Parts: sequence; C-alpha cells; structure tokens
Amino acid sequence: MDPLPVTPRTRITRIAERQKTDRQVLYDVLDAGLVAHVGVVRDGTPVVLPLGYARSSDSLLLHGSTGGGLLRAAATGAPLAVTVTLLDGLVYARSLFDSSMNYRSVMVCGTAETLTGQEKLDGLEELSEHLMPGRWAKVRPTTTRELAATLVLRLPLTEASVKVRADGATTAADDGESRQIWAGVLPLAVQAGTAKSSADTPEHLAVPPSVVGAQRRHSR
Amino acid sequence: MDPLPVTPRTRITRIAERQKTDRQVLYDVLDAGLVAHVGVVRDGTPVVLPLGYARSSDSLLLHGSTGGGLLRAAATGAPLAVTVTLLDGLVYARSLFDSSMNYRSVMVCGTAETLTGQEKLDGLEELSEHLMPGRWAKVRPTTTRELAATLVLRLPLTEASVKVRADGATTAADDGESRQIWAGVLPLAVQAGTAKSSADTPEHLAVPPSVVGAQRRHSR
Repeated sequence: MDPLPVTPRTRITRIAERQKTDRQVLYDVLDAGLVAHVGVVRDGTPVVLPLGYARSSDSLLLHGSTGGGLLRAAATGAPLAVTVTLLDGLVYARSLFDSSMNYRSVMVCGTAETLTGQEKLDGLEELSEHLMPGRWAKVRPTTTRELAATLVLRLPLTEASVKVRADGATTAADDGESRQIWAGVLPLAVQAGTAKSSADTPEHLAVPPSVVGAQRRHSR
Repeated sequence: MDPLPVTPRTRITRIAERQKTDRQVLYDVLDAGLVAHVGVVRDGTPVVLPLGYARSSDSLLLHGSTGGGLLRAAATGAPLAVTVTLLDGLVYARSLFDSSMNYRSVMVCGTAETLTGQEKLDGLEELSEHLMPGRWAKVRPTTTRELAATLVLRLPLTEASVKVRADGATTAADDGESRQIWAGVLPLAVQAGTAKSSADTPEHLAVPPSVVGAQRRHSR
C-alpha cells in the first residue's frame, strides 16, 4: 500500500515523530474504534458531534438520520474533519510536563458523497457489521421507509493524519529528577460489561453469539 | 444553578428529548471524561484534534504546547467547539434502524482566553488534578521554562449542548418484530488495566496511591 501523503492539513507540527504514514496503522485505528468526532463549519464556527462510523476498504462510512443538521451539511459537500481517538493509557512521568497519554488518533479530511441504491444498502450493512458484527443477518431487513430516513455518506481516505504515542514514561538522564518517584503507565481501554436483556426478551433466550462476540472484542 | 440556555448552535434538532439543560449533567459528563475533541476552523475547513482538559467551576480548561497549531489558533480567539463523549453501551434493538448507542455527549461553543501568571499556574494544577489526581503534590514543581512552553486556555461554559441516551432497546408494540429475537444493551466503559512501572523505577517502589486511585476510578 502507498504511504499516506503528508499535506499542509495533515502535517503534524508538534512532536512530529508521532506522525505515522503507514496506511495499515490508519486502518487498524479506524477498525478498532466505534465513535468518530465529526467536525463541520456552520456560519464560520466549528460544530463537532459524535457519530458511529465504519471503514469500508479505502473509505470511511458515516450514517445517521436525514433529520440531523451536521449530516445534512456533510451530504451537501461541506468540508469535514472526522477524528477517531483511542485512549490507551495515562503516562506518569516524574514531572507533569513530561506526563502524557498514550493514544492512537486519526483525522480524516475531505468531503463526502451520499450513497444511494444498492451502494447505500451495502454501506448500511458494512456499518452494521462494524458496529454490531453478526447482527445484520439476525434481524429483519431494513424497510424502504427506514432507508428513506437514513443518510449514508462515504468519505475517501485520501487525506488523513495518524498520530500515535505508545511509549512508557520518559525521563531524561540529566533532568535532576528523583528516581525514588514511581513512573509508569496506567493502561486504559474501552471494556464491555455484562449484556442486559430488555424487559420484553423472553427469559429462556440466551445472549446471542453476536453480542457475546462484541463483549469478547471489548475485553482485554 | 440556572439551566443551560438553548441557542441556535446548541439546539438539538434530531431526537430533541435527548437534550438536557441541567447544568449538573454538563458538569458530571465533563468531570467523568479525560479527552475532548476540539474543533477549530482553518482556511475555511474544520480541524478536530483530541486534547486533555479539565472543568474548573464554570469553565473548561485546555492546555498544550505552544508549538501546537490548533491551540495557538484557539489562543488567538478562534471560535471553538469542544466535544466530550462518554460511550456507555451498544443498544441492540430488534431492527438495525432502532439499534443505537448509549452515550453522554457535551459540546461547548465559544472562544477561549489565554491564562497568564498565577491563573495559568492554578489552571495547570486543576488540569493535573483532573487528569492525574494527587500527582501534582508528588512531583517537582513546574519550571519557568516548562511554563513558557505551555499554553493554558479557559473557555466559559456559557453555550453548551448536552445530549444523553441512557435507555434500553426500544421496540414499538405494533412493529411486527419477533419477540423471539434477543434485545438489550451491552454496557461499555473506559477501564484501567494494571499499572506498569517504567524500567528506571526501583523495584521496591510500590504503585503510589494516586495511581491506584486512578485505577479505581476507571474500574466498574
């Protein structure tokens, strides 16, 4: 795969060595996340809202109600910044200045196109398979009315910045800081708890494999 | 406390009943999160990047390097959208259309002011106490050089939208969907793992109470 091009918009100026141009790292971050923060400009000011998303090959898919203002703006070609951040830990150095977080973060820039017809249906399936793997085949098909109320957008992964910090606490050899202070990393990750059945789910119904799979995916 | 005013920018048009105007809910979401997604407009296009933050009374504090382009723009009065999202679960309904996520999300709009002098130092302490409670008192004071390399910004919590979904899976009584399909919620939360000492931390040093406290804070 070609490396990601570094553009004026995606060049990381602060701690440049954390910038990754390996497209596989971009894919891995996007495949591991569930929620993107989508930024759009409205009346000259920024709006940033969370949305579920999925990666589809070399594109990012977004979906939501036709009643949502941000998505409607995106559907008419407004420039977007779509950012996905995975928080991996708190880094305790021996000074607060050197303390940090471990994270993997991606920002995709560009404009989206609105999917229609079979592409729209396929996009919904890919979104479903990313957010709730295995569920698509288990519930009834999407209705025409539901499809009409849903926007599905595709944003190409052509301009994206990827920034990763995955180190321990750093302490310079000659910083004069006491080594008698503990330094290290507290790992953080999104974890699943125990699935809770809805009140109208018959008691004899076990939690289905697709939900158990999601639980496992979000477990260390 | 006065309720949050609903402005054209903060009015939620899509599923309006999820909008909360109780200021305490705003505070609770901000106090529970660690990372904000900060949006700014650059050359007419949005930029959205993750930043550590803290709430200080009726303001939001942001900090970072003077070398960071987004924070420098924010420091010169660029309009900001600062969004904090806590993902609480995946909601499996009996159709994909009704499936959803449980979440608490806040977007704060406005412009920030740059803190200086004692206010800047106090702001850094509040940021530290939010992100790494108890650590401020345990490490050496911030140096003049470090202070000079750091921007601390304060954004008032005057214009903010708060959106919360905290329900189970909903199924309409007459939707025709089979009740023999499992429906429910898979809870999700950020969880801490086991703290990992840095290689240069003496073996006899136990993980300090502040880090153990953070571990506990991020445990169910």
